[in-house]
Amino acid sequence: MKKVGVAILGLGVVGGGTYRILTEKREFYRETQGVDLVVESVLELDRERALALGVPQEKIASNIAEVVYNPDVNIVVEVIGGVEAAREYVLTALNAGKTVVTSNKELISKYSHELERAARRQNAGLYYEASCVGGVPVIRTLLDGVQSNCITSMMGIINGTTNYILTRMAREGLGYEEALAEAQALGFAEADPTADVEGYDSAYKLSILASLAFHTKVPVAKVFREGMTNVSAEDIRDGEALGYVLKMLAIGKRTGNHVEVRVHPAFLKKDHPLASVNDSFNAVHLTGDSVGDIMLYGRGAGALPTGSAIVSDIIYAATHGENKYSTFKNTAAADKDISFVSDFKSAYYLRFSVSDETGVLSRIASVFGKHNISIFEITQRAKQPGSMTLVIVTHETHELAVRSAVAKINAMDFARAESILRVAN
Amino acid sequence: MKKVGVAILGLGVVGGGTYRILTEKREFYRETQGVDLVVESVLELDRERALALGVPQEKIASNIAEVVYNPDVNIVVEVIGGVEAAREYVLTALNAGKTVVTSNKELISKYSHELERAARRQNAGLYYEASCVGGVPVIRTLLDGVQSNCITSMMGIINGTTNYILTRMAREGLGYEEALAEAQALGFAEADPTADVEGYDSAYKLSILASLAFHTKVPVAKVFREGMTNVSAEDIRDGEALGYVLKMLAIGKRTGNHVEVRVHPAFLKKDHPLASVNDSFNAVHLTGDSVGDIMLYGRGAGALPTGSAIVSDIIYAATHGENKYSTFKNTAAADKDISFVSDFKSAYYLRFSVSDETGVLSRIASVFGKHNISIFEITQRAKQPGSMTLVIVTHETHELAVRSAVAKINAMDFARAESILRVAN
Repeated sequence: MKKVGVAILGLGVVGGGTYRILTEKREFYRETQGVDLVVESVLELDRERALALGVPQEKIASNIAEVVYNPDVNIVVEVIGGVEAAREYVLTALNAGKTVVTSNKELISKYSHELERAARRQNAGLYYEASCVGGVPVIRTLLDGVQSNCITSMMGIINGTTNYILTRMAREGLGYEEALAEAQALGFAEADPTADVEGYDSAYKLSILASLAFHTKVPVAKVFREGMTNVSAEDIRDGEALGYVLKMLAIGKRTGNHVEVRVHPAFLKKDHPLASVNDSFNAVHLTGDSVGDIMLYGRGAGALPTGSAIVSDIIYAATHGENKYSTFKNTAAADKDISFVSDFKSAYYLRFSVSDETGVLSRIASVFGKHNISIFEITQRAKQPGSMTLVIVTHETHELAVRSAVAKINAMDFARAESILRVAN
Repeated sequence: MKKVGVAILGLGVVGGGTYRILTEKREFYRETQGVDLVVESVLELDRERALALGVPQEKIASNIAEVVYNPDVNIVVEVIGGVEAAREYVLTALNAGKTVVTSNKELISKYSHELERAARRQNAGLYYEASCVGGVPVIRTLLDGVQSNCITSMMGIINGTTNYILTRMAREGLGYEEALAEAQALGFAEADPTADVEGYDSAYKLSILASLAFHTKVPVAKVFREGMTNVSAEDIRDGEALGYVLKMLAIGKRTGNHVEVRVHPAFLKKDHPLASVNDSFNAVHLTGDSVGDIMLYGRGAGALPTGSAIVSDIIYAATHGENKYSTFKNTAAADKDISFVSDFKSAYYLRFSVSDETGVLSRIASVFGKHNISIFEITQRAKQPGSMTLVIVTHETHELAVRSAVAKINAMDFARAESILRVAN
């Protein structure tokens, strides 16, 4: 039976999960996959942690060279996170001809081109299913499951922390700060939640997934990104009354040579398949020209789900001699003729605080009309003596038109926009 | 660029869709996949149909030999359906060293072992993603996406016709016959709906998917199968009131060497991810030891979704020299030590018509007690003067115990079971 040596760089949460899966299920993989996966080396500076996981003394390496020049190591798993050391280690491994499996979304989003070139030079493999949506095989699906399709649209809930927060806000009527504090207490959010709640994490993942789906490199810098820290319980209640659920979405579209990528909170119709993806679950909804709509759903993070993706990549690498790169033929660099859309189109939910005077609604409507924004739904309710809350849902229109209209309305003394959210479909 | 010749056996709905995808997107596949897929031959007795699709005269073969001995043909797509001719054609193609891609669930469910042996002898490939759940890449996911997992459970809505009927019954309060007639009028159900509504179609698919998920051949004869023709609008209303949605489910479980496979209508809690899979959509929910719960959702049938799976298999075959079989190392035959569970466990929904007399409930409860069946929920309502409707939802218990208890109760003159449905979780 083919024996394949694996090294793990970093025994944190994901590295530890990967080590456990590989060692506990070695016999299972021999039986079901016909391959003998052996952990030959780990690089972990905290030796106690490695020993506590059961790693034998002699397999704990103290530097990257010991790992990559170990002839028994065929596949190197990078799960240390961060970018600088990870990039150096991965390049060293690839240059030594080792196949690399990584969960590092920032690394892949920023440096996939460089890493893939190094891999191809040495005929080594480069796999990164675990960098996006945990154990859900979205990358494998794009590469080997729906690759016959021209993918025109992807929409995903690809960050578990924000989905957990929004689910709690919707279910319990909590405010953002309250829900965040609860998520932090339960370990669903980090002490500094910026990467999640401001959408950076989703933007890296979207840049990777959109590159594969749209067959052109989508740099993370091209992703329009808006965080969810201003979302209020009132927005969620308003949306609910109108038949919407609020989600932190990653959206990608390709029409001809126009690619649009964005991460922001957005309302979804309650019967959209993504609307019932709750708690820390993730899902990606894709539209292809043949397959139509499909959705993949599961856990986007955690030691074992992410370990599942890493070990699935290891098995793929160990049993496939070709197709060594988690990439299509032409996604290493952006096509020259691709343009990234900044003035995208969407429907909008706008909540204004307005004075309770005659003529206010008609003056607001007139601003919308001048910006060619067509109104789909409108509701008004008393707020406090002398002021009203006005909620407007628009038909699809241009982002810049909405911003300009809202700026005009804010400049009037009788109205102020309290919330601007997009409505996806 | 690598050129790969494709032949299509049968230009019906799926064959026609496949032909259209391959010819319209040839340039797209050259660009994105680096492979030139050329339809070299079609076998279609109705020449007019082939010509109407735009197949050139000279590419219309009149017998299977013309196709499989054509040196320009590398991959043969079997989409004629049925079993006898399909089996003969597929074996002929494999014996001639051609890779085969098929959407034929009955063929694969019954003869995968024989076909795979033939394929291996000639170093040909055998792929059948399109046989299960249309364009949703469930097989690819099992093989290359979550193969690191020990899959313990699968639960799927894998027949679009029955899901459409049940969705209409739930939404509009239609009876079964009414909803079926509507589905037939709209082309969602065939004139003879037996294969769908009696669960045969789902049973073939389940046998294929369970074989892959559980690493052992699951013969279709081992699938417990119960149709949905007795499901009533009343059951659906009752379930709704209790927080359940009724779906036609395919369920597979493996615990140690025990494999359980069954197809029947069942109630699901409203917040289960499968509960919101409506209309003719399909979905498969899998539980793995590392990945936890994942679900794949999409269109289970239709020319283009099924064509998507076929063409994805063609591209996989054209670009992967290894991994030629949509199967694991040891699923060609059932393991000798596997036992198939017939007395499975489930929760149950039972609706009785009972006389409105004192002591009835206690006598029914006593029968349940004697069979070790524990009651989870019970509701009683007036039916007509002198008789009541009694709905009982049980905790998880054994199928045979429920059947025996119901037979005992039916033998009493004051009660009659009107409906017995399982409750899945």
